[in-house]
Amino acid sequence: MPADTAVLLVYCPDQPGLVHAVTHFIFEHRGNILDLEQHIDHEDDVFFMRVEWSLEKFTIAKADIASHLARIAESRLMWWRLQFSTERKRLAIFVSKESHCLYDILSRNDTGEFPADVALVVSNHETLRSASERFGIAFHHFPITKENHAAQEEKQLELLNERRIDTVVLARYMQIIGRPMIEAFPHRILNIHHSFLPAFVGAKPYHQAYERGVKLIGATSHYVTEDLDQGPIIHQDVMPVSHQHSVDDLVRLGRDLEKTVLSNALRWHVLNKVLVYRNKTVVFS
Amino acid sequence: MPADTAVLLVYCPDQPGLVHAVTHFIFEHRGNILDLEQHIDHEDDVFFMRVEWSLEKFTIAKADIASHLARIAESRLMWWRLQFSTERKRLAIFVSKESHCLYDILSRNDTGEFPADVALVVSNHETLRSASERFGIAFHHFPITKENHAAQEEKQLELLNERRIDTVVLARYMQIIGRPMIEAFPHRILNIHHSFLPAFVGAKPYHQAYERGVKLIGATSHYVTEDLDQGPIIHQDVMPVSHQHSVDDLVRLGRDLEKTVLSNALRWHVLNKVLVYRNKTVVFS
Amino acid sequence: MPADTAVLLVYCPDQPGLVHAVTHFIFEHRGNILDLEQHIDHEDDVFFMRVEWSLEKFTIAKADIASHLARIAESRLMWWRLQFSTERKRLAIFVSKESHCLYDILSRNDTGEFPADVALVVSNHETLRSASERFGIAFHHFPITKENHAAQEEKQLELLNERRIDTVVLARYMQIIGRPMIEAFPHRILNIHHSFLPAFVGAKPYHQAYERGVKLIGATSHYVTEDLDQGPIIHQDVMPVSHQHSVDDLVRLGRDLEKTVLSNALRWHVLNKVLVYRNKTVVFS
Amino acid sequence: MPADTAVLLVYCPDQPGLVHAVTHFIFEHRGNILDLEQHIDHEDDVFFMRVEWSLEKFTIAKADIASHLARIAESRLMWWRLQFSTERKRLAIFVSKESHCLYDILSRNDTGEFPADVALVVSNHETLRSASERFGIAFHHFPITKENHAAQEEKQLELLNERRIDTVVLARYMQIIGRPMIEAFPHRILNIHHSFLPAFVGAKPYHQAYERGVKLIGATSHYVTEDLDQGPIIHQDVMPVSHQHSVDDLVRLGRDLEKTVLSNALRWHVLNKVLVYRNKTVVFS
Repeated sequence: MPADTAVLLVYCPDQPGLVHAVTHFIFEHRGNILDLEQHIDHEDDVFFMRVEWSLEKFTIAKADIASHLARIAESRLMWWRLQFSTERKRLAIFVSKESHCLYDILSRNDTGEFPADVALVVSNHETLRSASERFGIAFHHFPITKENHAAQEEKQLELLNERRIDTVVLARYMQIIGRPMIEAFPHRILNIHHSFLPAFVGAKPYHQAYERGVKLIGATSHYVTEDLDQGPIIHQDVMPVSHQHSVDDLVRLGRDLEKTVLSNALRWHVLNKVLVYRNKTVVFS
Repeated sequence: MPADTAVLLVYCPDQPGLVHAVTHFIFEHRGNILDLEQHIDHEDDVFFMRVEWSLEKFTIAKADIASHLARIAESRLMWWRLQFSTERKRLAIFVSKESHCLYDILSRNDTGEFPADVALVVSNHETLRSASERFGIAFHHFPITKENHAAQEEKQLELLNERRIDTVVLARYMQIIGRPMIEAFPHRILNIHHSFLPAFVGAKPYHQAYERGVKLIGATSHYVTEDLDQGPIIHQDVMPVSHQHSVDDLVRLGRDLEKTVLSNALRWHVLNKVLVYRNKTVVFS
Repeated sequence: MPADTAVLLVYCPDQPGLVHAVTHFIFEHRGNILDLEQHIDHEDDVFFMRVEWSLEKFTIAKADIASHLARIAESRLMWWRLQFSTERKRLAIFVSKESHCLYDILSRNDTGEFPADVALVVSNHETLRSASERFGIAFHHFPITKENHAAQEEKQLELLNERRIDTVVLARYMQIIGRPMIEAFPHRILNIHHSFLPAFVGAKPYHQAYERGVKLIGATSHYVTEDLDQGPIIHQDVMPVSHQHSVDDLVRLGRDLEKTVLSNALRWHVLNKVLVYRNKTVVFS
Repeated sequence: MPADTAVLLVYCPDQPGLVHAVTHFIFEHRGNILDLEQHIDHEDDVFFMRVEWSLEKFTIAKADIASHLARIAESRLMWWRLQFSTERKRLAIFVSKESHCLYDILSRNDTGEFPADVALVVSNHETLRSASERFGIAFHHFPITKENHAAQEEKQLELLNERRIDTVVLARYMQIIGRPMIEAFPHRILNIHHSFLPAFVGAKPYHQAYERGVKLIGATSHYVTEDLDQGPIIHQDVMPVSHQHSVDDLVRLGRDLEKTVLSNALRWHVLNKVLVYRNKTVVFS
C-alpha cells in the first residue's frame, strides 16, 4: 500500500460524464488510480463514488487539491469529501463494564489492523481501567447520574476536543448520547447494538430475542443520530441459536458478533469507505 | 431408516426420573431406541423430549401404546403426542402468484425428500395451475374478494376435511387466514414470511428493509396463530445485502431464502421434530 | 433495467489513464454509464474492468463499436470482450439422474430470473425426460458407454452447434467431458462439484467428507478445463454439519447448496459478470 | 448452573437398554439429570452419550462413582470417562509471534467464559511476552532450532507436568509437536489450522488459497495427532472472499476466523463436550 494516497468520496445527481470528469482530473495531473468504485442508486438517480489515487507523482500539492475539486463539483451539484492516508484518525473508545469490544479493538490496534490511533478510553465506571491501561491507553472516568449527565458530557466533549478526537466508538457504552455530542461528531460516532436492528430496539435485546423465540441473534453497528437505534447502519451479522440457549447463552454468544461487527465497521470508517446518504450507508468494498 | 417406528413428543414440569421412566417403558417391551433428544428449560423448569424407537420387536400393539403412555404421563403432568412413521401426513399447499416456494416443495417431493403426500394446491389465482399440474398435483382455484373471503375459506375448509389434510403450507399465499381455519389446524399451518421476524412485520417487508438500509435480508417460517406474524418461529435464515441491491434485487435474492427456509421447516414438521411451548418452538435435531 | 445496453469486459497491464480512456470514449459518444467496476491485482499489476452503458442515445452503431474499442485496446495491450443485452445466451443443460439442479434452473427460468434461453436438456439417462418436458424443454438422450463416449460426445457437439448453444451447464452430469467439447466451449462450460474444492476432488465427495469428519460441507461451481475439478472457481458455499449426519444426510443437505451455487454462478455468467484470468475468476458484483 | 455436577461420556456397541441403564443408575441414587444427549452411528452401530447430573443430593460419594460405573460398563463393552465440574482444567497456551488467538483466549478468560485456568504461555519467541504478562500470565520462552527441538520439547514437557497442565492449546504456534508430547497429551492438544481442512494442508494455506482462487477461506480446530493436520476436527468455519482480496487481506480476515474457531473449540473441550472416535469427533451441543 503506497504511503501517500488521497481518497475522494462523492455523491451527486446522476448525469453522464461523472466518472470521466473525476478520472480525467486525476489522470491529467499524473495521479495513478489505486481503487475506484462507483454506484448508481437507480431509484433516486444518485451517483456515488470512492476513488483512491497515489500522490507519488501527482502534480498538484495536497493543499491545493480541494480547490481544484471544488471547481469540478460545483456545476454538478456534487457533495464531496477529500482525505489523505497520512492523516490518521484519532479515536476515543467509550465503554461501561463489558470488556469484549474494548479488548477486540485494542488487540487489533496492537497488531496495526486499523490505520488510526486509539487516543483514550472514556467510561462511566472504573471497571475497565486496568484493561485499558494494560494496553497503554489513557483511561478517563466520568461517573454518570441522571443529574450530572449533561454536565459530564460537556466535560467529555472538552476532553475530546482537547485531544483532537475525530471519531467516537461506543463499545458497549450503556448511556444515551446527548444532542451536543451528536452534533459535534456528525456521522463520527459509531455504536454497536446487540441485535439485528430494527428488531429489538432499546434495552435488553437478548431478553427480547429469547422471549420471541428467534432462531438467529444479531448485532448491528450504526452511526449515532438523535433517534435512538435509528441511525444509518454500517454493518450487521447474525448467528444461529436454538431452544437450547438460555438468555445467558445468547449474551455470551452475542459477544462474538458484537466485537467482530463493531471492529469491522470501525475499520471501514477509518479507511474512509463509508458514505452516508438519506440515513443509509454506502459501504465501498 | 426402519420402516416401522414410533415417535413420542413430551413435555412436563422437570422432575427426577423422566428419561428413565420413558426409556424403561420402551426397553421392557423390547423397543430399540433409534433417537432420543431431551431438553430442559432451566428458566421455566420444563422438560422436553423426543424419542423414536423401532417397533420391529416391540411387544405392545400400536393401538395399545397410547393407553400405556397415558399411565406414565398422568402422574407426571406430562403433555405428550404419539406418531407412527407409517402414517404419512397429507399436505395442502396454498399459493398466490409467486412460484418459487411451490416449485421447491414439489421438486423435493418428487425426489422423496418429505415423508409426506402433497394432496393438493389451493390458490386465489389461476396463475400457478400449470405449475401444479405439471407435477400431477390437483389445483383448486378459490378467487378471494373482501366480500367472499369468509365464505370461500369455509369451502376451502370443507375441501381440506374431505381430502383428510393434516397440514397446510402457506407458500407465499398473500391472504390472511381466518380464525376458523386456524382453529381447525392448530400449529398445523406453516407460513413463510419474507423478513427476519420480528423485523418488518406486515406488508412489503423487502421495501421496508430497503428503506431502513439493513445489511442482511431474512426469511422466517412460523406456525400461524391469530396474531399476524406473531406465531411460534420454526426456522429463520438471512443473507448479506448491500447498497448495491435495489428492492427488486432484494425480492429476487430473498426467494432463495424463502424457499429453503420453508422447505426445511416443513421437513422438520413432517418428521415430528417440532414441539410448540408458550409460543416458541423446540426443534429437535 | 434499460432494454438496450452494452457490456465491456477488459483486462490489461495496469497503467495510468485506463478508466479515463474507456469512460471518455463512452461519454463523448453520449453513452450513459449504468455500472462500472474496476479491480487492480496489485500482485500482478493487472487492471480489470466491467462497464455497462446505455445504448439509447449512443452515437455509434452496435456493429461499429468493436472497431472503436480495438483502437483503444491496441496500444494498451488490452484484452476485451463486448456483449449486448439484446443477445440472449442459449443454454444447454446436461444432467444424469439427479433432478434438483435441473428443477432449480428450470423453475428460475420460468420466472424470468435468467436473461437467457434454456434451449435443451441432454442426458446419458432417460430418468429426467419428464422433468424437462414438464417445463416444455426438449430432452435429448445420449446413452454413454466406455466405448461410445467419444462418438456420442461428437454427436452432442453437433446438436449444440446446430442449436446455436452458447453455454453448457453440467447440472450434476456424471460424465467426464472430452477435450473437443472443452475446446469448443472455452470458459463456457459450467460445472457444479459437490464439495468445497480443492477439498475432496473426484468421486463421492460426500463420502470423503463423512470419512474425514469435517464440520462443513460445500459446493463449488467452476468452469470446466482439461484438468478435472481444477478449473477457475466461480462460486462456492458451505453449510454446517455434525456427527449427527450420515452420508445420506450430507447428500440430501448438499443438494440445497449445489442448486443454489450453480444457479447463482450461472446467473453471473449469463450477465457477463465473470472474467477468467490465470485460472481464477474476477466476478463483478 | 449448579456448582457441583458430574459429566459422563460414553460410547459402546449399540444395544437395547443403554440409556435406560445409565439413567436408572443416576435416578436410583437421587441424581437429577441436567443435560443428556445421545447419538447412534447407524453405519458402525455405535452408541454415544453425554450425561450431566447434579451431585447435590446424589447418594454416592464422588470417589465411589467410578467403581459403580465400571460395573455398568463392563458387560456392555462401554468406553467411558467421568469428570467433575469442580475439577477445572489447567491450560498451557503455545504461541509464536501472532497475537490474535492469544488475546482472544486471554480476554475471554478475563471475563470468565472458560471454566478453566490459563496457567502459562509457552513460546519459541519473546514477541508475546508483554501480551501475556499484561494479563498476569506467566510467559516461558523456549527458543527452538532444528538442533535443540527435541531437547527443548523435553523441557517444555517437564514444565507442563510440574504445573499440572491438562490441555495444551496451540494458538498459532508455528512448530511441529513431537511424538513424546503428543503421547503425553492424547486428544488434549488443540491446534488451529488456518484453512478449511483438508484443503490446503501444510505451510502457507492463505497463499495456497489465493493461488487457487477460492471464494471462501476457512479455519479448522483439531486435536493434534502424529499425522500433520490430520487429527480429529472439532470445529470449522469459513467466510466469503473475492478477487478483491490480496494474500495480506486473506491473512487479516482469517484472523477473525482463527480466533473464534479456536476459542469455541477450546470451550467445548473444557466443558467435556468432545468425544473422539475413529479420528472423528462427536461434539455434544
